[in-house]
Amino acid sequence: MYSFENDYSEGACQKVLDYLVAHNRVQTPGYGIDEYSEKAQDLIRDLIGNKDADVHFITGGTPCNALAINLIKPYQAVICAANGHINVHETGAVEATGHKILATEGKDGKILPEEIEKVVLSHNDEHMVSPKMVFISNASEYGTIYSKKELTDISGMCRKYGLYLYLDGARLGNALTAKGNDLTIEDIAKLTDIFYIGGTKNGALLGEAMVIINDDLKPDFRYCIKRQCSMLAKTRIISQQFIALLEDDTYLNNARNANEKAQALKKILADHGIEMFMDSPTNQIFPILEDGLVEKLKQKYRFIEWGRYDDSHTTVRLVCSWMTEDEVIREFAEDIDAYMN
Amino acid sequence: MYSFENDYSEGACQKVLDYLVAHNRVQTPGYGIDEYSEKAQDLIRDLIGNKDADVHFITGGTPCNALAINLIKPYQAVICAANGHINVHETGAVEATGHKILATEGKDGKILPEEIEKVVLSHNDEHMVSPKMVFISNASEYGTIYSKKELTDISGMCRKYGLYLYLDGARLGNALTAKGNDLTIEDIAKLTDIFYIGGTKNGALLGEAMVIINDDLKPDFRYCIKRQCSMLAKTRIISQQFIALLEDDTYLNNARNANEKAQALKKILADHGIEMFMDSPTNQIFPILEDGLVEKLKQKYRFIEWGRYDDSHTTVRLVCSWMTEDEVIREFAEDIDAYMN
Amino acid sequence: MYSFENDYSEGACQKVLDYLVAHNRVQTPGYGIDEYSEKAQDLIRDLIGNKDADVHFITGGTPCNALAINLIKPYQAVICAANGHINVHETGAVEATGHKILATEGKDGKILPEEIEKVVLSHNDEHMVSPKMVFISNASEYGTIYSKKELTDISGMCRKYGLYLYLDGARLGNALTAKGNDLTIEDIAKLTDIFYIGGTKNGALLGEAMVIINDDLKPDFRYCIKRQCSMLAKTRIISQQFIALLEDDTYLNNARNANEKAQALKKILADHGIEMFMDSPTNQIFPILEDGLVEKLKQKYRFIEWGRYDDSHTTVRLVCSWMTEDEVIREFAEDIDAYMN
Amino acid sequence: MYSFENDYSEGACQKVLDYLVAHNRVQTPGYGIDEYSEKAQDLIRDLIGNKDADVHFITGGTPCNALAINLIKPYQAVICAANGHINVHETGAVEATGHKILATEGKDGKILPEEIEKVVLSHNDEHMVSPKMVFISNASEYGTIYSKKELTDISGMCRKYGLYLYLDGARLGNALTAKGNDLTIEDIAKLTDIFYIGGTKNGALLGEAMVIINDDLKPDFRYCIKRQCSMLAKTRIISQQFIALLEDDTYLNNARNANEKAQALKKILADHGIEMFMDSPTNQIFPILEDGLVEKLKQKYRFIEWGRYDDSHTTVRLVCSWMTEDEVIREFAEDIDAYMN
Repeated sequence: MYSFENDYSEGACQKVLDYLVAHNRVQTPGYGIDEYSEKAQDLIRDLIGNKDADVHFITGGTPCNALAINLIKPYQAVICAANGHINVHETGAVEATGHKILATEGKDGKILPEEIEKVVLSHNDEHMVSPKMVFISNASEYGTIYSKKELTDISGMCRKYGLYLYLDGARLGNALTAKGNDLTIEDIAKLTDIFYIGGTKNGALLGEAMVIINDDLKPDFRYCIKRQCSMLAKTRIISQQFIALLEDDTYLNNARNANEKAQALKKILADHGIEMFMDSPTNQIFPILEDGLVEKLKQKYRFIEWGRYDDSHTTVRLVCSWMTEDEVIREFAEDIDAYMN
Repeated sequence: MYSFENDYSEGACQKVLDYLVAHNRVQTPGYGIDEYSEKAQDLIRDLIGNKDADVHFITGGTPCNALAINLIKPYQAVICAANGHINVHETGAVEATGHKILATEGKDGKILPEEIEKVVLSHNDEHMVSPKMVFISNASEYGTIYSKKELTDISGMCRKYGLYLYLDGARLGNALTAKGNDLTIEDIAKLTDIFYIGGTKNGALLGEAMVIINDDLKPDFRYCIKRQCSMLAKTRIISQQFIALLEDDTYLNNARNANEKAQALKKILADHGIEMFMDSPTNQIFPILEDGLVEKLKQKYRFIEWGRYDDSHTTVRLVCSWMTEDEVIREFAEDIDAYMN
Repeated sequence: MYSFENDYSEGACQKVLDYLVAHNRVQTPGYGIDEYSEKAQDLIRDLIGNKDADVHFITGGTPCNALAINLIKPYQAVICAANGHINVHETGAVEATGHKILATEGKDGKILPEEIEKVVLSHNDEHMVSPKMVFISNASEYGTIYSKKELTDISGMCRKYGLYLYLDGARLGNALTAKGNDLTIEDIAKLTDIFYIGGTKNGALLGEAMVIINDDLKPDFRYCIKRQCSMLAKTRIISQQFIALLEDDTYLNNARNANEKAQALKKILADHGIEMFMDSPTNQIFPILEDGLVEKLKQKYRFIEWGRYDDSHTTVRLVCSWMTEDEVIREFAEDIDAYMN
Repeated sequence: MYSFENDYSEGACQKVLDYLVAHNRVQTPGYGIDEYSEKAQDLIRDLIGNKDADVHFITGGTPCNALAINLIKPYQAVICAANGHINVHETGAVEATGHKILATEGKDGKILPEEIEKVVLSHNDEHMVSPKMVFISNASEYGTIYSKKELTDISGMCRKYGLYLYLDGARLGNALTAKGNDLTIEDIAKLTDIFYIGGTKNGALLGEAMVIINDDLKPDFRYCIKRQCSMLAKTRIISQQFIALLEDDTYLNNARNANEKAQALKKILADHGIEMFMDSPTNQIFPILEDGLVEKLKQKYRFIEWGRYDDSHTTVRLVCSWMTEDEVIREFAEDIDAYMN
């Protein structure tokens, strides 16, 4: 049984594992004030071209999201696309911090600048929450990516109305290495106020690097992490993993492999006339499969049935990871050939 | 510079590391519904002699505490000793869930049954919070341990008043292997309603195993973990570590080493006439040192200055871990000899 | 300047005021455990035909809503129509208690049973909140009312899926006295788990009567009220007002007057060919007015411009109250005549 | 049965009632943006000698406290004396907003500047909450009052460490009119950052006037009130009551009467050799009564038994109000004479 279920089905990539093992017995202070954390912070500041950014290492993506959003005041709200991770798949972790999420329809999993404006203009007195942050993810929940123009427009709209722009980078590597991408990580650091670089879904055992650009959001963030139960005693193990990922091209290579393998799957399916529910250039694809084919695939592969497409078809999600190998793709191609003839 | 600062200064013990490496590339479902998690859950159910217990793997100790306490209703409160971790060192993580902590004085870092009763009896109308849980840690913040009689009495008092008893086992291994301990983990599973077995401070990279005994507290706990941002996508890496720790004597051996090394330090100091602020049979000791000696030690060792004792003395805390080696103790003995003569 | 802005523009109706004055100097215990509160509770139990109901007197509607919804567990959610008061006009008071609101489209301001089912069925694992309560208001935000069949169907759907049904009765009097209404308050007490009888918008200075039918929701509710800052020291002044309203027909008469006057306004407008944005049988009407007429009306009347209808028309809201007099309606008729000719 | 149980046993003083009745039928906008609210705000700005203060009308004292404390950031804490109302008698309403209360011992119900400093200095890293506000009440829970020097010293300590000073004025009138008081309300407005003038316990049906001095705390406070469920639709009824109380000497006269009557009770008891548990110059007294006398008094009077004093004595609390009349005091004197001879 091979799993295309998600990009966190395996442990860590070899480089990360080796680094952890090599530095395992070194003694350091706890809670992220150690030499590894400093080194990883410096690496990230160099990478994004902003030496004043604050960098913190957090256990996972949901904690990053809840932490970022809880920087706004209690009566302030965050705007996101209706299918945004925070709005659907975090069991109310944002509401748990007391904040309302204002969901807009979005398009292809992405939010539109004009939607942001509409929400802001329709919240105009103290009987309603006050929008103060916009949440986007890149790559999005549907694997789509923001162009430089799109992100610039969203950022401009946020600045027009005094909103913070927060980017969930759980799959940031996949976005940056996607075919057609024209955004750099330096751009992202210029256009957003706070974002995170995802480790969990790109070859780390766990951990994300929260990057705070806007000075308003920097003070006392370590208090926030601790209070929200997301500060690891051995934070260094996250920092060490980010060093391993970022001191060379491992981070980008991991993501690129995931993208390429998923795109290869897409081509195999397209060659058999199968259409995608939504086109994605990253490591998640959403083919619309005839139900009989789904049943056959389930004998050998694990994946998520995303939703009914019509009476006889199902949209499924196939995800590749840093670890997906050519051999798997070849075998999948043979299986599809066999199933469809 | 050698660190006696705490028991989470290093990475993982070799057995844990080996297990992670050996099973790294196996694919599993995410979020703790994988085969490793099932295996670790079974190991723990066997260990505690309760096949009906629910077991969950959580990122750290503070999240465990906040999760357990947030099982009670919003207007209900938790009772603990004033120096309890939740009351001092968690940046209000419990209050962040909306619950009040009712602190009692305690004795040697431990709570007394009669204190519990007093708190309960003095909270008797709806203008005050309603006590519903007792929080203890074993070993305590001062390294002291509960005897079987003490825990039985506390448990009895809790049952008398319908309170849940929650035990923070961040250093449970140290308690169970301490000289003089007469409590087994089966006893703890019988006398408490919910407790956790600490991994972070006993040789894991991260992770704790929450054990729920009382059926009332079991429903929907996975929703609670997710909502509180404490569910790891790769939960399996915590489960794998617990398998490595618990499938043989690694867990107890790690803790025993930490205890023995700390007790060896204590003997070295006592042999030089140095007294302890509080006597502890576990891996933390609290010697009262003349300030000059503190300065000398700081040249070579890292440790926490716990507080001023008097005009010329400081109470310090020395902590040993699963990794502390005989060589370190020998060297410390020589240094003390040198400094004090 | 006459105000049709809302139904809380004036103080209390005469009967209420007289009762408060007559009983002002009587001494009672504080916080709602007084003889007036008992009497008002008994009146309400009789009225709804349920002698076991718990009744509590609360400062306002938003606190009632937040209190009711906070009875569910932290990871559980409430379902409501998108325009529901809790979803738009309470500045995140529900999210402040940590709960997510799941909004459905609704129809005419009312929720449909099949929408409830759809939400329940699409929330099926611990990565999403767990729906546990349905919020409706009767009369709704648009002044529409639920028929006995509609409420019975919603109640049945709630029971099918183990959801609590909560009814916001801020304008319950208006619903019960509306033309075409076939629901009694006894029906409501049978079909819901918890609801409130609104005082503020029906002739009281302030205050609502929360009625808890379902035994699961009754325990310790006074703790909840106090913790949520919604327990008045002189709760008796709310109880006294409910006695005044309910010991005779004052409550229904107040509401009936508001309805009749609003319907008279509607007829005046309809006679001039003006259409309603949504038809309502209660004390709020939503005429679509030509912009020039809006400007003329604003010279003499205060009301809310609800939204743009098209390039030359605005939907406005006109609300009548227990105090609106025939004279006002006559004058409005004359003014419309004058403006439109 | 006459009640000395508290100062909110009756309705409103005549002046307040008359004002409410006289202005009952005037139409105004809801939620505190009406002409009465503006007038009451101006009266208060004049009274305190600060024309820039923000003034808001809130339903009660517990909501005021929770609102003020929730102005600080989530990880920040409030310091108060252990017997402070927020720490004991608000069912965790402050913790419900996510904030920890740091309680100090205090003296005579009042906090000492050196206690504040000690708390601040011992909270020095991100593993602990960060103190940011000090809560005091004047008169205190024990009826004692702060001198000008005491309040100046506390204020100085707060400014030294960047803490906001918040004063709970539930019984502010009693403090200002107490024998020996040397503080004016102008002083309070200069020495604190935010405080409230209590109405509920001084002749209003309900309501308190929150006064915000520090500009940092002013923005968007109306959002906070609404979100916390403490904004009345008919806020004007609170404003109207404050006009009635403050446009002449009614507020001070009400408080003065309560003080004088309580002090008269104290003298009666003292003349019979009865001592006070704590000396208070305001409207609450705490005599230590022989248990037999307590039983006799309970036949005719209602009051709170504050606590056991020794094997044969009980400390009780007697409270007088704006309504307590000479006749009551005379009768009490006769009863004490009778009981003790």
